[in-house]
Amino acid sequence: MPPIDAVSLTAELIRCPSVTPVEGGALVLLETLLSEAGFECTRVDRAGVSNLFARWGRRGANQTFGFNGHTDVVPVGDLAAWTVDPFGGEIRDGWLFGRGATDMKSGVAAFVAAAIDFVKTTPPSGAIILTITGDEEGDALDGTTALLDYMQQAGEAMSVCLVGEPTCPDTMGEMMKIGRRGSMTAFFTAKGVQGHSAYPHRAKNPLPALARLMDRLASHELDAGTDHFDASTLAITTIDTGNPANNVIPAVCKGTVNIRFNDTHSGESLSAWLHQEVAKVSEEMNVEIDVVIKVSGESFVTPPGELSAMISKAVTAVTGVVPVASTTGGTSDARFVKNHCPVVEFGLVGKTMHQVDERVEVAHIEQLKSIYARILSEYFQ
Amino acid sequence: MPPIDAVSLTAELIRCPSVTPVEGGALVLLETLLSEAGFECTRVDRAGVSNLFARWGRRGANQTFGFNGHTDVVPVGDLAAWTVDPFGGEIRDGWLFGRGATDMKSGVAAFVAAAIDFVKTTPPSGAIILTITGDEEGDALDGTTALLDYMQQAGEAMSVCLVGEPTCPDTMGEMMKIGRRGSMTAFFTAKGVQGHSAYPHRAKNPLPALARLMDRLASHELDAGTDHFDASTLAITTIDTGNPANNVIPAVCKGTVNIRFNDTHSGESLSAWLHQEVAKVSEEMNVEIDVVIKVSGESFVTPPGELSAMISKAVTAVTGVVPVASTTGGTSDARFVKNHCPVVEFGLVGKTMHQVDERVEVAHIEQLKSIYARILSEYFQ
Ligand SMILES: [Zn+2]
Ligand SMILES: [Zn+2]
Repeated sequence: MPPIDAVSLTAELIRCPSVTPVEGGALVLLETLLSEAGFECTRVDRAGVSNLFARWGRRGANQTFGFNGHTDVVPVGDLAAWTVDPFGGEIRDGWLFGRGATDMKSGVAAFVAAAIDFVKTTPPSGAIILTITGDEEGDALDGTTALLDYMQQAGEAMSVCLVGEPTCPDTMGEMMKIGRRGSMTAFFTAKGVQGHSAYPHRAKNPLPALARLMDRLASHELDAGTDHFDASTLAITTIDTGNPANNVIPAVCKGTVNIRFNDTHSGESLSAWLHQEVAKVSEEMNVEIDVVIKVSGESFVTPPGELSAMISKAVTAVTGVVPVASTTGGTSDARFVKNHCPVVEFGLVGKTMHQVDERVEVAHIEQLKSIYARILSEYFQ
Repeated sequence: MPPIDAVSLTAELIRCPSVTPVEGGALVLLETLLSEAGFECTRVDRAGVSNLFARWGRRGANQTFGFNGHTDVVPVGDLAAWTVDPFGGEIRDGWLFGRGATDMKSGVAAFVAAAIDFVKTTPPSGAIILTITGDEEGDALDGTTALLDYMQQAGEAMSVCLVGEPTCPDTMGEMMKIGRRGSMTAFFTAKGVQGHSAYPHRAKNPLPALARLMDRLASHELDAGTDHFDASTLAITTIDTGNPANNVIPAVCKGTVNIRFNDTHSGESLSAWLHQEVAKVSEEMNVEIDVVIKVSGESFVTPPGELSAMISKAVTAVTGVVPVASTTGGTSDARFVKNHCPVVEFGLVGKTMHQVDERVEVAHIEQLKSIYARILSEYFQ
């Protein structure tokens, strides 16, 4: 049997229109391919979401290499702006186009191809587990979480886990991710009393209080960064009132703040700080301010160790680039996997992800398959 | 000929549905009545707006008493919420109901009734001029301004002018207005660069700059008040962004500020201050902030003198209350008349103006007619 062509497999996956939460044939395709190659496959579907668990080798093996990825994609957006069919999987001038080309059907295809080739040519003594979800771009409530719940129940475990999300900002190989900052959003509502702007003493304007609170929060330095993390950041994302009348003082206004925080903080410690600042401004300005806080994820890190060393070695061997171990960027399903085992993310250049004309260099898919193959060899040697 | 009944005349005017800019029969009714009483009437219509100029006595008389008022009314609003027909002119339990009952068909009726009675019973050596507009509640571009333009052209002049707007907050007789604060609105637009809230260093968030600017402006004490004016006030009326995505830093946000200012300031001096504050915050935060300023009116005052003394004496004689000379509140057509001659405003209790079930105490209309009659006697004695 010839080696699996990762580029063709990516194109085939792109042709499955798997916009969250639609399976679109993508997981069925992988299940067929992996089953044929001797992987034991289990569909772990929950609440209308499809997920695939696959294991080659013995359950409970001491050395079990894990991989996590997703086949669902974000909507195409403005279809008219695309120069190709977003679900066509077309190659032009060395680039493979389509929704999911970088995020992350190529990453899934590269690992599946590398893993099948590997177990066929040099069957290891340990096991390989793939957890592929159809709900990473959505709420992610019934995706990787469902797979991990299933594994716990079924006595399945990964020793380490590689997440195949795109991790490189510009150049292939330049970055892996060993953790992520935490993320939380705070929704503020300042409540006053409506009135005429000619008689401000008869009204109570909530806007000066909200402006002051927002200025205080945005001016505060949360920290200066830590060993593995950049400084935490706070962004005011919106302030809204919706009062069209220049002679009216509004009764209510709202503001939202998004915080990306490192291991100096927790959702709880930052919530306490926000409540404190709210109380101060509320008292100073004599305006009631409510706050509702939603913590999307705590910060986490897998400190540099064996797994990141293996990845770094493989990346450098294939690309000549030494990847930095970063914790920057948005969220990924690594936030769930980190509760299970050490987890590191490495994948392609993510520049066009979620955009019109999403595309990946064909050569990069080949490189990624080589990198994943070298990691497997290294891990099981 | 019996005296004119100011209450019946108010009711008749209410029955003319003269929502700006519709004449509705109100000015025609007054023109007929005044002509019959010997007033020389001229309709001064401009750009679809009707206005009435009426003079009793000789053009250019040394002693010419002026009156300014309006017959147009604001829309009825929620018709279903009215307990009476807003254009019915119905009397219930001593109250006359209807749109314009306080603002200001009663004021116009009271003066017209007082003036007609006065010229019939004790014809003065001087003149009386009425300037009644149908565009006070609208843009006011072709109302009192058109009347004043006409007068200048026709060689007509008032020595002093009484404006009959409702001026009393709660109790009949408690307040006359000798001036008004200026009013201006500033529209700010802060411009940054959109981005992902996980990568704030790649974006430029305009919101912290706008929040700081709004806090600075709202915290600044403009002045502590002057001889005839309360302290100037600044109200943030709205801040808007319209960004629904918590992971996105917006490119643009807007804020609006309304300033009511006394004679410490002018539209020009405050504009200079605003531009200065904008420049400071813009430099501190490295965010471009545009400002567009609209000055609706400068502050003005007719310092207490003969006219206000006459009004005060008449008010006290009829009601037993000594009116305070105030400069509070919103805008009125006195802002145009002040360029022509000394102007003071006195009228009814304005509590229900512009509201559902607008109404006036019947007894107050009688009192107002008596007050206006006494002012005329005093002026021409
Ligand atoms: Zn992804
Ligand atoms: Zn009015």
